[in-house]
Amino acid sequence: MDIATIIGILLGFFVIISAIVAGGGGKMFLHLPSLAITIGGMLCATLIHFSLSQFLGIFSVVKKTIVTKIPPPSELIQKMVNYAAINRRDGALALEQEIRKLDDLFFIKGLQMLVDGQEVDAIREIMTLEVENLQTRHSTGKKILEFMGAAAPAFGMIGTLIGLVLMLKSLDSPDKIGEGMAVALLTTFYGALSANLIFIPLAGKLGLYSKAETTAMEMIVEGVCAIARGENPTAVREKMQAFVSQSRREEIKANI
Amino acid sequence: MDIATIIGILLGFFVIISAIVAGGGGKMFLHLPSLAITIGGMLCATLIHFSLSQFLGIFSVVKKTIVTKIPPPSELIQKMVNYAAINRRDGALALEQEIRKLDDLFFIKGLQMLVDGQEVDAIREIMTLEVENLQTRHSTGKKILEFMGAAAPAFGMIGTLIGLVLMLKSLDSPDKIGEGMAVALLTTFYGALSANLIFIPLAGKLGLYSKAETTAMEMIVEGVCAIARGENPTAVREKMQAFVSQSRREEIKANI
Amino acid sequence: MDIATIIGILLGFFVIISAIVAGGGGKMFLHLPSLAITIGGMLCATLIHFSLSQFLGIFSVVKKTIVTKIPPPSELIQKMVNYAAINRRDGALALEQEIRKLDDLFFIKGLQMLVDGQEVDAIREIMTLEVENLQTRHSTGKKILEFMGAAAPAFGMIGTLIGLVLMLKSLDSPDKIGEGMAVALLTTFYGALSANLIFIPLAGKLGLYSKAETTAMEMIVEGVCAIARGENPTAVREKMQAFVSQSRREEIKANI
Amino acid sequence: MDIATIIGILLGFFVIISAIVAGGGGKMFLHLPSLAITIGGMLCATLIHFSLSQFLGIFSVVKKTIVTKIPPPSELIQKMVNYAAINRRDGALALEQEIRKLDDLFFIKGLQMLVDGQEVDAIREIMTLEVENLQTRHSTGKKILEFMGAAAPAFGMIGTLIGLVLMLKSLDSPDKIGEGMAVALLTTFYGALSANLIFIPLAGKLGLYSKAETTAMEMIVEGVCAIARGENPTAVREKMQAFVSQSRREEIKANI
Amino acid sequence: MDIATIIGILLGFFVIISAIVAGGGGKMFLHLPSLAITIGGMLCATLIHFSLSQFLGIFSVVKKTIVTKIPPPSELIQKMVNYAAINRRDGALALEQEIRKLDDLFFIKGLQMLVDGQEVDAIREIMTLEVENLQTRHSTGKKILEFMGAAAPAFGMIGTLIGLVLMLKSLDSPDKIGEGMAVALLTTFYGALSANLIFIPLAGKLGLYSKAETTAMEMIVEGVCAIARGENPTAVREKMQAFVSQSRREEIKANI
Repeated sequence: MDIATIIGILLGFFVIISAIVAGGGGKMFLHLPSLAITIGGMLCATLIHFSLSQFLGIFSVVKKTIVTKIPPPSELIQKMVNYAAINRRDGALALEQEIRKLDDLFFIKGLQMLVDGQEVDAIREIMTLEVENLQTRHSTGKKILEFMGAAAPAFGMIGTLIGLVLMLKSLDSPDKIGEGMAVALLTTFYGALSANLIFIPLAGKLGLYSKAETTAMEMIVEGVCAIARGENPTAVREKMQAFVSQSRREEIKANI
Repeated sequence: MDIATIIGILLGFFVIISAIVAGGGGKMFLHLPSLAITIGGMLCATLIHFSLSQFLGIFSVVKKTIVTKIPPPSELIQKMVNYAAINRRDGALALEQEIRKLDDLFFIKGLQMLVDGQEVDAIREIMTLEVENLQTRHSTGKKILEFMGAAAPAFGMIGTLIGLVLMLKSLDSPDKIGEGMAVALLTTFYGALSANLIFIPLAGKLGLYSKAETTAMEMIVEGVCAIARGENPTAVREKMQAFVSQSRREEIKANI
Repeated sequence: MDIATIIGILLGFFVIISAIVAGGGGKMFLHLPSLAITIGGMLCATLIHFSLSQFLGIFSVVKKTIVTKIPPPSELIQKMVNYAAINRRDGALALEQEIRKLDDLFFIKGLQMLVDGQEVDAIREIMTLEVENLQTRHSTGKKILEFMGAAAPAFGMIGTLIGLVLMLKSLDSPDKIGEGMAVALLTTFYGALSANLIFIPLAGKLGLYSKAETTAMEMIVEGVCAIARGENPTAVREKMQAFVSQSRREEIKANI
Repeated sequence: MDIATIIGILLGFFVIISAIVAGGGGKMFLHLPSLAITIGGMLCATLIHFSLSQFLGIFSVVKKTIVTKIPPPSELIQKMVNYAAINRRDGALALEQEIRKLDDLFFIKGLQMLVDGQEVDAIREIMTLEVENLQTRHSTGKKILEFMGAAAPAFGMIGTLIGLVLMLKSLDSPDKIGEGMAVALLTTFYGALSANLIFIPLAGKLGLYSKAETTAMEMIVEGVCAIARGENPTAVREKMQAFVSQSRREEIKANI
Repeated sequence: MDIATIIGILLGFFVIISAIVAGGGGKMFLHLPSLAITIGGMLCATLIHFSLSQFLGIFSVVKKTIVTKIPPPSELIQKMVNYAAINRRDGALALEQEIRKLDDLFFIKGLQMLVDGQEVDAIREIMTLEVENLQTRHSTGKKILEFMGAAAPAFGMIGTLIGLVLMLKSLDSPDKIGEGMAVALLTTFYGALSANLIFIPLAGKLGLYSKAETTAMEMIVEGVCAIARGENPTAVREKMQAFVSQSRREEIKANI
């Protein structure tokens, strides 16, 4: 679970809302029609730009980014070395019991194929395809979030223009100018806040997370295939450690 | 037919128009001279940037993007495998009847050349040229839409400057200030709305669609050529499936 | 002659001027000092950025882009095949009469070198250098137009700042505020209009034109050299047609 | 120690504060809630974008950039040549005494491994990993500073929008308009000032510094390995001087 | 001497100042505190971004760009051919007298090494290092000018924010609003003017100049080395002319 993301979002909204309340504002900052223009318009533009399935997928991608804990490489290596030892000593079937202790679906799937006695090449092909699918989902998710971060301020401005035109119409009742203007500015406020506190930073975090998860998955692929070829625990450890030198930094950073 | 595009555009305009009507505006947001400056100016700039034929082609490119249904790879593979079987069993002429059941013009053209007994190389050359033509049309269409998305807000601002200067001239009749200002802002509103709800997202969708359609066409080229060489259904299936691993994701997303 | 460019510029100015006149403005939109700041400042910045000869060359480059008609490849191929036939039948000297019927200076120069009996390598070297010179001129011209498109709005804003400061000085005579403000906004209007209706789209058109003219010139180089080597008409046609598959689309679009 | 950075920041704030005081402002420019929105919001967005460890690391990276003095190449070469001579004359153990005179931790670590008699390959691997770690820290630091430089003005604008809405609410008490507006503008001021005087230029300086320190470290790696292989002082000097031709300029600039 | 740069800067300031004076402004546009914020802030940010030596070097780089006359290739070739003839006829020492007639320090240095009888490889290495140093200085200079062109408008905006806050404080004395606002806008004016009339175009000119001077220096290196190898005048001419085909255009443009 990525604590930094959750802290950042909660603290960010706390800072903004505190400032509003301290300044004497409150309910006036929650204006549903303004929210509808900014967020609704942004969502519609995203629907036009991307396809329906890409659009619907973004929510699960973001949720997984925040919730999923990527195991540290050292933990992965330790487990894989154990499995290699069990495989050499008691055969692949003995790994069946180990699978029950895991909760990483990708790891489970790989080991299950191993236990089922599938060919190394088949295991590698199926698992690699899954890694590629993940990378595509992440990279599409990053593009969608970046597009949302650009579209939200744009629709905020469109909303403000609508509000200004409506206000200028009733310029003869000067006591309403202030209120009309305040409401008009709310859409720009919603657009700027959602883009800068949510969409743009989340797109960045998704990029970091994608690198870390991809490396972990590639380590699992390499380890499971080495075990499937019946390699000894030392060889398995070496194969997996080759990833660490290039991934350790990423892992340390993403595994908070 | 790409439902996401249509939903996005209709829903987007519904959200914006609802907000306007709810705010008490309505007819005042439809100002034909302002529309002429923004859309007219943008179209003129597009004419200067691109050539007349590129400019006229953009409408059919966009229409095709929204209307055309790209068949899923599995359907294409199934059909092609059937044709390969017919070709091996009854000869190429027996495919004539199958052509009548198709409605994809590119597929029909390829099969017709096959039935007419043309050389494999000639079939491949002619069909590949058509794929390249499509890619050029799509990439030019994307550039035009992106240019329109940049030009529309620019001409919106030019219109607002004209409106402001006209309004400032009659500053002595203060009751007209509000109305003049409101009208002046409409061009910026039109420019921002058309760019962010239509041109920019459509350019993105065109890029996605182009990838999906190109892959489908390349699969047809590969399949027709394989049949023309008299390959058996299994070989045809394998040749076409090579595209799926790299295209499945694109296809799933674009085929809504 | 590129009709789209001329239609676009004329129609664009017609739309803008119509909107101004319809709005009750007219002479007030023509303010020479404002024009001097925007266009003068932009030209000075261009002079500093580029060299004197590059700066002076831009006008002829733009004029040529709009005025020059690029012959369609089919016409070029037809002529070249005729010349190859004449050359084989009557010798190179017989081409002298054909030169008089041409009005493309580059074509004339190539044929003249052929008639003068120069070596193929010398002809190719001299003609290729001319193609490269053209590409450099076009690419420099595109950069200058793009710089102008960025500098014009900047100097428009500078002019508006000058106008605002001048107006704010005389804030005590409120009847002049409107007029001062209107004049101040004119420079921004000039900058935005010239950039978006002239410089930016012209830079784009120059890029398209450059590709089309370069291809036509390369076809002439290839054709003249083939004739100089005494190749037969069929071989000349084939050499030149190799360009068409890759250039046809460009040509069709640029040759309006 | 990089004097330019310190002079630039101190002088920059002196210029800005002088201008404020000279204009009759003072305490009114220090508004803690505004500071909280701008800097707090920016820090929260940075937390969401990056991971907790990357975020916390930025402070030490910046501190090291300003405080650390990179030794000039000539000094490094002189020391290494001396050590090579000592190593050849008295053996590696005699270098133990030299280590005490150094204060560069990376240099000390390398020499210590040499004295401890480790293999050349092991020394190179460990030291190179440290150089790579530094480059990653610097490049991440640069990205974080650049993101802060983009987020600070964005949250400044968000703060100004909040201030404007709050002010427009109390438009009926016109004596408060000026004050409310002034406070609203402070967040934009904080955002623009911190981005342009701190974050953006510091990101640039970090890039320069990273190049200079990396080169110095690579020279130490090369020198220590050459000594470990028992090469003579002249060979060591030549190996290290190969870096100077490409690094001299960087070094001269970064070593103020 | 680059006349276009000087004409552009002088004429640009003449146009702007004329417009100010014609509009009735004058001394009010010269406000030293505003100048201090904009230019001072920009210089401080540049100091933080770059190192002290890079910062101080920018002035001489710009001065050299404007003042130095790059000799046309034809002149360089003519001289070098003469020197080659003298060298073959009377020996290298006879070139001593020719050196006194030169005023290009780089050319003098090269010939002097030739007269001093240094090895060809040593001459080439030393001269090439100098060419590389020049390119680094120019490219750093271009980056500094571009940074200045981005920082000046930013500090102009910061100054305007300070001015607005100061003005809004004294909103109760409405006769001072206009003046305060006018002064506040001056910093934005200074920032926009210095960036668009000086820093951004000068960065472009420096790039053009760098290409032209580098080519001239490379021709000198090639020529001096050819003479040092005792090649005959014709061979020297050919070696140098190889540069002309690719440099002629650059030279013609930069040598105004």
